[in-house]
Amino acid sequence: MQGTESLRAVVEERISKLDYTIQPVNLYEPISYTLNNKGKRIRPILTLLACNMFSDKIEDAVNPAVGLEVFHNFTLLHDDIMDDAPVRRGEPTVHIKWNANTAILSGDTMMIEAYKLVYQAPDYCLRSVLELFSNVAVGVCEGQMYDMEFENRNDVTEQEYIKMITLKTSVLIAGALKIGALIGKANTEDAENIYHFGLNLGIAFQLLDDWLDVYSDPKVFGKKTGGDIVANKKTYMLISALANAKNKQLAELNGLLSKETFNEKEKITAVKNIYNNLNTGELTMNKAKEYSSKAFEYLNKIKVSEDKKQTLHDLGESLLNRIK
Amino acid sequence: MQGTESLRAVVEERISKLDYTIQPVNLYEPISYTLNNKGKRIRPILTLLACNMFSDKIEDAVNPAVGLEVFHNFTLLHDDIMDDAPVRRGEPTVHIKWNANTAILSGDTMMIEAYKLVYQAPDYCLRSVLELFSNVAVGVCEGQMYDMEFENRNDVTEQEYIKMITLKTSVLIAGALKIGALIGKANTEDAENIYHFGLNLGIAFQLLDDWLDVYSDPKVFGKKTGGDIVANKKTYMLISALANAKNKQLAELNGLLSKETFNEKEKITAVKNIYNNLNTGELTMNKAKEYSSKAFEYLNKIKVSEDKKQTLHDLGESLLNRIK
Repeated sequence: MQGTESLRAVVEERISKLDYTIQPVNLYEPISYTLNNKGKRIRPILTLLACNMFSDKIEDAVNPAVGLEVFHNFTLLHDDIMDDAPVRRGEPTVHIKWNANTAILSGDTMMIEAYKLVYQAPDYCLRSVLELFSNVAVGVCEGQMYDMEFENRNDVTEQEYIKMITLKTSVLIAGALKIGALIGKANTEDAENIYHFGLNLGIAFQLLDDWLDVYSDPKVFGKKTGGDIVANKKTYMLISALANAKNKQLAELNGLLSKETFNEKEKITAVKNIYNNLNTGELTMNKAKEYSSKAFEYLNKIKVSEDKKQTLHDLGESLLNRIK
Repeated sequence: MQGTESLRAVVEERISKLDYTIQPVNLYEPISYTLNNKGKRIRPILTLLACNMFSDKIEDAVNPAVGLEVFHNFTLLHDDIMDDAPVRRGEPTVHIKWNANTAILSGDTMMIEAYKLVYQAPDYCLRSVLELFSNVAVGVCEGQMYDMEFENRNDVTEQEYIKMITLKTSVLIAGALKIGALIGKANTEDAENIYHFGLNLGIAFQLLDDWLDVYSDPKVFGKKTGGDIVANKKTYMLISALANAKNKQLAELNGLLSKETFNEKEKITAVKNIYNNLNTGELTMNKAKEYSSKAFEYLNKIKVSEDKKQTLHDLGESLLNRIK
């Protein structure tokens, strides 16, 4: 079994060989820019880890793995236009550095490039990989649409929220793992189990992200807290608080959400106080733990030796241990 | 050999079975809206015609053919955002009827749906169809980027223009034909010849379109003339005139192009006068004829009986006979 860092090196090497120094420059430069703006490469690493769990030969999984990273970056590019986000990983987003039309068109090209890598999957699993990848890709689009719709709604249920983050975040994590398993010739049951490991892990990861926005230590986490609160983002925290607050507290929370001008620090403190009173942090964390336990149950079910699961287990743990 | 109308019915029937009455409605409704806004279905008909030229069995080509139509409609959706076009086929465009974010995301979903149809190609040609389709798709994106770049340039050469329309329009026509040929088990030489038939036909078609904007009879053609002139669109007509005009005439043309406020009718008349003096219409028409002759030469080379080529020949002729 190869470790995470060695697989990351494999991914980086393959990405470095994608040559986008071609014409028209305005189409391809944003693609290089996006792919070189170092992400964590979690999805392709998961593909390679999953493949390696069932097979010693990971070469056949490298192109599809990198295809998933290109696809993920395509979604960031288009999402950033839709959310009008100015910065991504500390750098200006493509629609800011270039313009929205370029971001649309370079994004479109990246999605095709993603397919070109994904369909390098071997013959024995080509159709199932294409089908899985396409379903995942459509799911991500559906998730983004729900996310945008939720912005204008104050009655989003927990169930709807979980469905949205499942589509927007988890199906790609789950799909990355299952594609690796299929290329590694896992049997149907194991492939399903690794898919559901990823699906639940992804949900736990997102719930934790929602918690971290409120309670993380900015010194350790390196990110300003309260951003979701300022933006009225429909996180699990807010949805849970809206569901549990009553009377005066609910009125106060709704008041904070509807105010158009406010002092950011004061708003964060006030909303945080309500969260503290309603135990929202603990409820969110418990929900995250529920999904992470479910994730590891699915990992346990996979019929390979424990040592082969260790790296994936550790990676899963590390994604969920960002609190410290 | 099936005729064009019978193949159009096959295409329409398959499109009518694509079920996009699903959730989230805001994602899928624009897709139905776009696909039901009856286009001419030229690309899928070309795929089926090409397949039928080499095989009596066209069933295997239906899904990929419709995939090309879905892809074509995806490009219209995204192009209309980029060009800020309010109307398409007499109906409001998606980014106007809904909004730009919806048009981006529904377009993305359509591209995935296109792949899902294209990869239904049979095993014996799956990889070559995927490769061809992806190269075509990337080419179309490159063409759109060049087209946008040309808007801000006054030194576009004829050669650059031909390259742009080849990418933006012709590669998809050519690819539609070749995909049909591959599914119909054409040999490599015939598949290449049908590709180049489409490539040259597409260029001739676009050049004729440029001519029609200036010289067509609106009563017959059903479209207002001079739209390209008003918008300073870099058509072959304008590029040719800019290349051939000298001294006072060149200054007059550049003056007309740079005026920010003008009477539309006067501008059309003035530019048309310059075109008349420079013989621009004839030069453009000759260029179109050059490419259409080349197209039919490639069609002639294909090693099937003449009667099998007739429908495609007639369709090609009809696309080029829109003058009357």
